[in-house]
Amino acid sequence: MELNSSADKSGLPPGSLVHIGEVHDITSKISIIQYNADTLVQHEDVIFSELSQFKDSDLITWINIDGLSDTRVAESIGHEFNIHPLVLEDILSTQQRPKLEEYEDYLYLVLKGISAESDAGFKLQYDQISVLLLEKYVITFKEKADDAFKSIYHRMENPHGRMRKTGSDYLAYALLDAIVDEYFVVGDSLDEIIEPLEDSLLLNPAEEILLTIQQIRRELISMRRSVSPLRELLSTIQRSDNTLLTVETLRYYADIHDHVLRVTDSLESYRERIAIMQDIYLSSISNKMNETMKVLTIYASIFIPLTFIAGVYGMNFDYMPELKWQWAYPVLWGVFISTGIVQLIYLKKKKWL
Amino acid sequence: MELNSSADKSGLPPGSLVHIGEVHDITSKISIIQYNADTLVQHEDVIFSELSQFKDSDLITWINIDGLSDTRVAESIGHEFNIHPLVLEDILSTQQRPKLEEYEDYLYLVLKGISAESDAGFKLQYDQISVLLLEKYVITFKEKADDAFKSIYHRMENPHGRMRKTGSDYLAYALLDAIVDEYFVVGDSLDEIIEPLEDSLLLNPAEEILLTIQQIRRELISMRRSVSPLRELLSTIQRSDNTLLTVETLRYYADIHDHVLRVTDSLESYRERIAIMQDIYLSSISNKMNETMKVLTIYASIFIPLTFIAGVYGMNFDYMPELKWQWAYPVLWGVFISTGIVQLIYLKKKKWL
Amino acid sequence: MELNSSADKSGLPPGSLVHIGEVHDITSKISIIQYNADTLVQHEDVIFSELSQFKDSDLITWINIDGLSDTRVAESIGHEFNIHPLVLEDILSTQQRPKLEEYEDYLYLVLKGISAESDAGFKLQYDQISVLLLEKYVITFKEKADDAFKSIYHRMENPHGRMRKTGSDYLAYALLDAIVDEYFVVGDSLDEIIEPLEDSLLLNPAEEILLTIQQIRRELISMRRSVSPLRELLSTIQRSDNTLLTVETLRYYADIHDHVLRVTDSLESYRERIAIMQDIYLSSISNKMNETMKVLTIYASIFIPLTFIAGVYGMNFDYMPELKWQWAYPVLWGVFISTGIVQLIYLKKKKWL
Amino acid sequence: MELNSSADKSGLPPGSLVHIGEVHDITSKISIIQYNADTLVQHEDVIFSELSQFKDSDLITWINIDGLSDTRVAESIGHEFNIHPLVLEDILSTQQRPKLEEYEDYLYLVLKGISAESDAGFKLQYDQISVLLLEKYVITFKEKADDAFKSIYHRMENPHGRMRKTGSDYLAYALLDAIVDEYFVVGDSLDEIIEPLEDSLLLNPAEEILLTIQQIRRELISMRRSVSPLRELLSTIQRSDNTLLTVETLRYYADIHDHVLRVTDSLESYRERIAIMQDIYLSSISNKMNETMKVLTIYASIFIPLTFIAGVYGMNFDYMPELKWQWAYPVLWGVFISTGIVQLIYLKKKKWL
Amino acid sequence: MELNSSADKSGLPPGSLVHIGEVHDITSKISIIQYNADTLVQHEDVIFSELSQFKDSDLITWINIDGLSDTRVAESIGHEFNIHPLVLEDILSTQQRPKLEEYEDYLYLVLKGISAESDAGFKLQYDQISVLLLEKYVITFKEKADDAFKSIYHRMENPHGRMRKTGSDYLAYALLDAIVDEYFVVGDSLDEIIEPLEDSLLLNPAEEILLTIQQIRRELISMRRSVSPLRELLSTIQRSDNTLLTVETLRYYADIHDHVLRVTDSLESYRERIAIMQDIYLSSISNKMNETMKVLTIYASIFIPLTFIAGVYGMNFDYMPELKWQWAYPVLWGVFISTGIVQLIYLKKKKWL
Repeated sequence: MELNSSADKSGLPPGSLVHIGEVHDITSKISIIQYNADTLVQHEDVIFSELSQFKDSDLITWINIDGLSDTRVAESIGHEFNIHPLVLEDILSTQQRPKLEEYEDYLYLVLKGISAESDAGFKLQYDQISVLLLEKYVITFKEKADDAFKSIYHRMENPHGRMRKTGSDYLAYALLDAIVDEYFVVGDSLDEIIEPLEDSLLLNPAEEILLTIQQIRRELISMRRSVSPLRELLSTIQRSDNTLLTVETLRYYADIHDHVLRVTDSLESYRERIAIMQDIYLSSISNKMNETMKVLTIYASIFIPLTFIAGVYGMNFDYMPELKWQWAYPVLWGVFISTGIVQLIYLKKKKWL
Repeated sequence: MELNSSADKSGLPPGSLVHIGEVHDITSKISIIQYNADTLVQHEDVIFSELSQFKDSDLITWINIDGLSDTRVAESIGHEFNIHPLVLEDILSTQQRPKLEEYEDYLYLVLKGISAESDAGFKLQYDQISVLLLEKYVITFKEKADDAFKSIYHRMENPHGRMRKTGSDYLAYALLDAIVDEYFVVGDSLDEIIEPLEDSLLLNPAEEILLTIQQIRRELISMRRSVSPLRELLSTIQRSDNTLLTVETLRYYADIHDHVLRVTDSLESYRERIAIMQDIYLSSISNKMNETMKVLTIYASIFIPLTFIAGVYGMNFDYMPELKWQWAYPVLWGVFISTGIVQLIYLKKKKWL
Repeated sequence: MELNSSADKSGLPPGSLVHIGEVHDITSKISIIQYNADTLVQHEDVIFSELSQFKDSDLITWINIDGLSDTRVAESIGHEFNIHPLVLEDILSTQQRPKLEEYEDYLYLVLKGISAESDAGFKLQYDQISVLLLEKYVITFKEKADDAFKSIYHRMENPHGRMRKTGSDYLAYALLDAIVDEYFVVGDSLDEIIEPLEDSLLLNPAEEILLTIQQIRRELISMRRSVSPLRELLSTIQRSDNTLLTVETLRYYADIHDHVLRVTDSLESYRERIAIMQDIYLSSISNKMNETMKVLTIYASIFIPLTFIAGVYGMNFDYMPELKWQWAYPVLWGVFISTGIVQLIYLKKKKWL
Repeated sequence: MELNSSADKSGLPPGSLVHIGEVHDITSKISIIQYNADTLVQHEDVIFSELSQFKDSDLITWINIDGLSDTRVAESIGHEFNIHPLVLEDILSTQQRPKLEEYEDYLYLVLKGISAESDAGFKLQYDQISVLLLEKYVITFKEKADDAFKSIYHRMENPHGRMRKTGSDYLAYALLDAIVDEYFVVGDSLDEIIEPLEDSLLLNPAEEILLTIQQIRRELISMRRSVSPLRELLSTIQRSDNTLLTVETLRYYADIHDHVLRVTDSLESYRERIAIMQDIYLSSISNKMNETMKVLTIYASIFIPLTFIAGVYGMNFDYMPELKWQWAYPVLWGVFISTGIVQLIYLKKKKWL
Repeated sequence: MELNSSADKSGLPPGSLVHIGEVHDITSKISIIQYNADTLVQHEDVIFSELSQFKDSDLITWINIDGLSDTRVAESIGHEFNIHPLVLEDILSTQQRPKLEEYEDYLYLVLKGISAESDAGFKLQYDQISVLLLEKYVITFKEKADDAFKSIYHRMENPHGRMRKTGSDYLAYALLDAIVDEYFVVGDSLDEIIEPLEDSLLLNPAEEILLTIQQIRRELISMRRSVSPLRELLSTIQRSDNTLLTVETLRYYADIHDHVLRVTDSLESYRERIAIMQDIYLSSISNKMNETMKVLTIYASIFIPLTFIAGVYGMNFDYMPELKWQWAYPVLWGVFISTGIVQLIYLKKKKWL
């Protein structure tokens, strides 16, 4: 059963395993890695009914599931590892806020992988990632089949790396760290968009720039929603006295916490730079309007009086003595020119020219 | 006795049972469901004087009252189940903030059912719902006779469902869950209104759009008032050590808490999208005004000088040598045209054309 | 000694009994009610020197003082009931923030009675009310001689009412409740002013509306200052373990707390509605200005070119072949009309007409 | 050594006794009062080297120093009373935030005396006042030689006053109270400036008013910086279990705390009134601009078409039959007048006239 | 390995020693000072492989490293003093938020040295400074080779100074104090820029001023990001019961805390002054536009009617009796002049002139 939003699900009993979210048209793909300091075994495209045979091993086991549309996978994971139905329900519904839930035998973490779309404009892509941390297992569910964990696979191949020598809590840390590191990449691509915008705003405050600014503002809001709950989540982890987490690894979680603080700090400063750009844009529109008004007023104030005078001597009265005077016409040109010059001096003094 | 607002009630002693709120012209309708894992008995249109005969049963009893205008119902409930008069007073007054009150033998919860009106515009309807949770009873009071609990009735018919196997605390949870799920439906209908607005704002920022935006903003404010107190209410429930709530069910209350956080999160993000739309609207008005000014200034700056020159040669002086010259007229046309072209080039350089 | 503001009092030693505030030209009027479940004795216009004879009674005694200008009343109360001089000083100075102070034998509470002026405009009136709660006494000081406590007198006459059967703490509750109930009345009268404003704003955003809006905004600010400290005050009372307050009555204080939360909630939502109205007003001014500009630009863009052409054929050159042509004049009218039509089509396309 | 700002001092070791601040060109003036219930001895213009002879008395000793430029005074005080060098450093540097520091034998308090300048405009003057409270001594340092403590001297002369009968903690209270009372005076003088501004803003929103508003806003910001830390400072004092403060005196400190809350409340409400004035100002500018535009548009829309028609009949074509008609001229006047009337009706309908 | 931003590092295992930040093209320069009350030994340009020989001394040892590009230095420090790899990683990455981390044997502090660029405009320079505080060692890493610690070197030469007599915790304090003192210098240079801006804004609100204002606003945002975490950092230090910090020195840390509060206070007040300037700027643009409009409207309202009248008598009708009247022309001038005067009086009454 697949639904598009949480609203469509209202009325179903809690714990109903239904995939909520965009359907990404990928069948759920299970890959399993088992390792310790000496061994590393990789299993690709495991079938969900075979999951039970990876239990009862002495190795640390990482089960990764890409794609959530096949709800039977979550169901059998739930069955094998005794996961609470509400957790399974949350894993399948892709509109979660990042959160941490502690159960007796496991921790459940959900957070968002974020990436900036490569093509024009600034549009973020979200990938909901659920992490179940058990004593000897880490189970991850990813909404999309992207490369978020590629670097982890790579580092795992190094038998001397810390990851091979430590438990499942360190693996979970490494996964979180990989996800949070992606946020810095997004921040960098934002920098690359905002800086040229700031420059072009000063040169030519076109309306398109405002729309781009507002688009970035919108994306910043949604990114903040996905990132800021991590602050509390990670400080909860650090204060936790759960035996699944060793003291030594908590130090590493503190390091991610610090990274998240840096990300939220810089989101906040992007927000403030956006506000500054918006203020500059608005005042520059006012300035331009003032400029336009001045041009109009200059033309009008110079030529309207002159046109009136010309109109006067275009009248057809029989008795207009000036019309007969021989020098009247050149004298009038003198009047025209001097009136114009007086106006120009006046405008100059008003700093309009 | 029926009153329209809390103000009309000032001066009455506390605990006066008076229905405060719009009168919905429905007589209070009592329906009772009694159940356990094996049995399910439903009683419709129970008369309030018969309530006592549903006590002293081994079954879980859910008493639902639709409509608050008959204050005798609340009175007899209060009498049968020993409910504090202040609670009865609050149940009948429909301007409550969502809140939780713990009494010795029961919990009193009040919250708002919210639905979006089906027809044009975005207008929310509120339905105050009071829940009394006792050891073996759940008593609900609904201001309106809507379908808010239909899905619960449906699920209750399933003898293998969790609801039939657990106590009154799980039923109360299921009711809250049904109410909060409706908030997601409202959120979805908001999405359906905001997205086309955002598009049409970019194309044609008409004044009607601003008024719709402000109307939505107003509704968001009132919805937030009804939803945000639930956050604290639900975290109070979770921290409570009240024996009416089993540890197992508290897990489910935590799930509603999480849903409420998602709703308030999205209300906040709607608010921010509304703010963005308003900013776009205002700057687009400024842009349009600037555009209008430019058109005016272009016409004026081109034709005002030309009209002056034409006025000069419309003067009737006797001695105006140019008037006699054979080529004066075509030459003047040349002056007209070249002056116009110079202006156009100047405007082009100013990026006004 | 009477002073107009706290500033005039700077330099006096603390505990100086001076009435600070507007002088309301009423002599202090003392009325005393003594009651228990069986008896109710009322004494009007008691003289302050007779106060001592109402002590040492088995009845609950409520002493109410209307008007603060006669400082001897406070002095003798202080003397009879051993009240701290700082409390007496605060009772007489009418610029207090609502606050609660616990002393060994009594509680001192000060809050503001608020009423909306009946005539045009929205203007609030404040009445500082001090409540001293002792074991068997309640002493109230009111700045003005208004009807704030009329409903209490009325309810007290009912020998079966809760008030007659309980102690002084319940009387103090009833007084607070009466004061807070008045806030709902103010809220209602605000509603009656804001709703027609919202409607007329959409029809005709006149400048007077903005000034009324800002006036309401100012009153909301001052009302919030008088109401919001009550939230903390009432939660302090509820957490208090003072023996003057029985557990049973604390439940009632919780009820007032809830009422205050509803009042502050609705003040907040008025504030937000006012902000919305202001935004609508400002954008409607911009819209109107744009409209004005358009009318001007339409006239100018149509007639300025035509006037130029007419000016050209008003020139007096001897050699202007067109002037001789027989059909020149009607042809020119054709030019006039078609130029005008082209302009109108252009403006139509720009959606200006 | 004297410096103008903290920045100039960077690089010096901590505890360097340097006067930082404007130099007020007064030599430090020491005056000493010793008192108990029976005795009161006053010493003016004490020389700093004689300070030691006022120690070891049974009386309460208050040493007041006006002017900070002579750093030897602080040095000898530090030496005699064993004051921490960081405290002495802070006393001499006049850019402190109000703060409280508890040391083993004494309390160190620093706060700002504030007064409004008497002449035109609203400009605040600050006077840094440091208070050292020891068992039997109060030592005060004032940056300027103003009258801040005059009322204290006066009250001290009264042998029956509370001050003469209590310890140094009450004297310190009285000094703080005198300083905070001055804040009310400043608030009153603000009222006297804001109220006429509010009135004249409605009549004639001149640019000078905006500048005055912004000037007041700036002063409010700086005053808030000096007042708001006092809230925390005073609640720290009240929670303190320092033996220098008797329980009875703490009641009085609570009273100052309440005064500070009233001051910060009213600063906040001034800030909001200023914001309202600014909003009124801005919208009135927009209204005036709209008014100006309307006048222009009215003239233009009436006369531009008429001028065109007059221009047409000023053309010199040989064949213009209307020119020959006897009634053409009066008929045209009819056209002029009726066109004008039609325009006026149209404008009237648009509510522009 | 050198990278420009944290983003480029995503994918590397935690604890990878990589220098992140602008490369300042300086090789890492190590200088070591060893001292106690009697001795002071200075070693310049120490080679990183020789570090071990400075251990096991009885003196307090301060190792300062200027420049981070040579990652081997951090590596050997980590090796010699047993520093956690995450700390070393943070030291080398120059995009840290100020923070404090407590480890078993040492404290790790990172903060930002800030200086204002000397040339035109307001542009801040940041220098990341890491401080490791061990029992007998202080190790500092500076991103740039500036003079931040010059005053410390100077004071250290004084054998009677506090620094020579106390432990490593006082040295760390002195270093922090020197860094924070620099913030006051930055504040002063801001003052020197803002004050003339405020003056010139009132005289001539040019667009350049707005851009400068916004530039300052941007710098204030980034400076606040670097300073405000210090508040929490320093209050954490003060509450810490780490044995590395003596009670006596904590008093000094409290002094820095106070300085940081003053800096953040003044940053906040700069922000508010910037906001005031922006408001003045925007309203002055509106005023200027209104002024421009008035000039235009004055010219138009005076001359447009006159031009129409002149146009009327420029018409060529055969029967226009006025044209024959002998006094028509002077009478018309009278009409022109009196119409003009009436207009001027009207405008005067409207306060436009």
